[in-house]
Amino acid sequence: MRVNLSEDCPMKNNEEILTVFENYLAQIQLPEEPQRLYEPIIYSMSGGGKRIRPALLLLCCEAFGGEVHDALPAAAAVEMFHNFTLLHDDIMDNAAVRRGKASVPARWGENVAILSGDAMMIYSYQLLRQVPESKLARIMEIFTSMALQVCEGQQYDMDFEMRRKVSVVEYMNMIELKTSVLLGGAAMIGATLGEASEEDCRKIYRYALELGLAFQLQDDLLDSYGTEEELGKKIGGDILEGKKTCLMLHAMSRAVEEDREILRNTYCDATLADDEKIARVKAVYDRYDVPRTVNQQISLRFERALSILDTLDIAAERTEHLRVFARNLMGRKK
Amino acid sequence: MRVNLSEDCPMKNNEEILTVFENYLAQIQLPEEPQRLYEPIIYSMSGGGKRIRPALLLLCCEAFGGEVHDALPAAAAVEMFHNFTLLHDDIMDNAAVRRGKASVPARWGENVAILSGDAMMIYSYQLLRQVPESKLARIMEIFTSMALQVCEGQQYDMDFEMRRKVSVVEYMNMIELKTSVLLGGAAMIGATLGEASEEDCRKIYRYALELGLAFQLQDDLLDSYGTEEELGKKIGGDILEGKKTCLMLHAMSRAVEEDREILRNTYCDATLADDEKIARVKAVYDRYDVPRTVNQQISLRFERALSILDTLDIAAERTEHLRVFARNLMGRKK
Repeated sequence: MRVNLSEDCPMKNNEEILTVFENYLAQIQLPEEPQRLYEPIIYSMSGGGKRIRPALLLLCCEAFGGEVHDALPAAAAVEMFHNFTLLHDDIMDNAAVRRGKASVPARWGENVAILSGDAMMIYSYQLLRQVPESKLARIMEIFTSMALQVCEGQQYDMDFEMRRKVSVVEYMNMIELKTSVLLGGAAMIGATLGEASEEDCRKIYRYALELGLAFQLQDDLLDSYGTEEELGKKIGGDILEGKKTCLMLHAMSRAVEEDREILRNTYCDATLADDEKIARVKAVYDRYDVPRTVNQQISLRFERALSILDTLDIAAERTEHLRVFARNLMGRKK
Repeated sequence: MRVNLSEDCPMKNNEEILTVFENYLAQIQLPEEPQRLYEPIIYSMSGGGKRIRPALLLLCCEAFGGEVHDALPAAAAVEMFHNFTLLHDDIMDNAAVRRGKASVPARWGENVAILSGDAMMIYSYQLLRQVPESKLARIMEIFTSMALQVCEGQQYDMDFEMRRKVSVVEYMNMIELKTSVLLGGAAMIGATLGEASEEDCRKIYRYALELGLAFQLQDDLLDSYGTEEELGKKIGGDILEGKKTCLMLHAMSRAVEEDREILRNTYCDATLADDEKIARVKAVYDRYDVPRTVNQQISLRFERALSILDTLDIAAERTEHLRVFARNLMGRKK
């Protein structure tokens, strides 16, 4: 399926881009045997992900005038890599459910999950090597450096769980590595395929990184302060798990020792009901104005991401889809 | 460190190649943080492997007149990939010991082993992308296809453990994927870097594949019929684990039902001492002339590997180191 994107053809909007991408994914043929290696890969890839990273990659390519068609394998590589990280994370976190279905380790067992995850990562390079040959070395460099940083982020995340004290700065560094770098890499690969200048590639990376951080901070905020409708699950999960979110770490850095004790111990206090635990911790957050601080940071990073788009060496209207993408990601109307 | 290998410089022999490779590995700098991600990688890579695959890659490159220096990153990529497979295999097999030391999962835990294995595989691509740019696409193709096949082989191996019946043909296919393909890929990458013709690349792949199969069959044979000195561990381990080796599968395909019962059940018969179990199973192997069959297959494949070298489009003396390599691998004097 060849996608026509000649000069006088209008740019594809975000929904059109997603349709093109889903069609591309659907025609990828994985081997049938051994079944227990490839079936979990198909299962993961068709699990109803939001395709945020490939969409971003394709939109960045298009913004700089690149052919969406040429960028499809790289977009699929990034999506495959993302799903590989989820698969191995589900083993490490002992997660039984992913996107409302049984996780791969829950369904096929841990060994199959390790191995099919490995195959997914290799397959992401199989897709990546299909980019135009003149850009392969550069794109491999971006992809590989991004992939290593994601592993570093996951390791810091596991390390932090065992540590008593983690600073807000350390946390921001961790989520940058674990989640934002993948958005940054996707954007940069797209821009590279669209023949963006090196400077614009760096800027688009920064745009995606700031957006990713805003998104992750908002995720933390909504988990405690959103509505069930916004969140798609029960409010307060992070608090009940005693997770070191940005809310928790901000609060810890500001609170007096008495309140710190509340933050540390409430989640495992067997005498309290879930509602009481949540209310108790949120009361401390509120006392130190934590939600406002985090909200400010989200807005700051979101605005920074959008303002980077103003500085790109392309016509303003070519950045429109990237603005829409950013607003959609954050669930914002304007 | 620049290795001089100009036309009038003699070819490096196998020991010299290994020294050059170890020096190259030693100067690779991995990041220091996060420690629990990178320390297991250094631990695995310095664990005293025999460096069979990188040596083969470098020798193949040199045989066709290529620069050993240019092939070092690819050789390191193949060795890194091999050690990644060992690391994840040790999780899947619950292996506490590797090369006489604690395995990575035993020492750091399973989650660290999963993640640092992932990072090793990504790092192998980090090394691979340093090959000359004109050959990158082709070498990525060889490497990635090889890597996927290794995963397929591991999956078949796990599948076979749970199956009652496995044919000799299925077994040969499995060990080809799980172990020989990696030798084949290493050889082919080396030849490609040495500017071998496509036909010679295919031949050198076949040479390494046959050699790998001969080696694996010999491994099976020695485990039951070797000396402790040859094997480096106690004889009969495979029999005591009830493993489906080529000896077992040949015997199963030939034996009458009564003997098949012995083959199936002896390893888990609690009334027998280890020595008795081993003697009992070997008596069946001997009754059906299995050791001779396997020995013939080893010789056949070994001779086939060497005879392929005669057909290469290079001077006969340029293949000498590859013959020595083959003999050393099989522990043969001639």
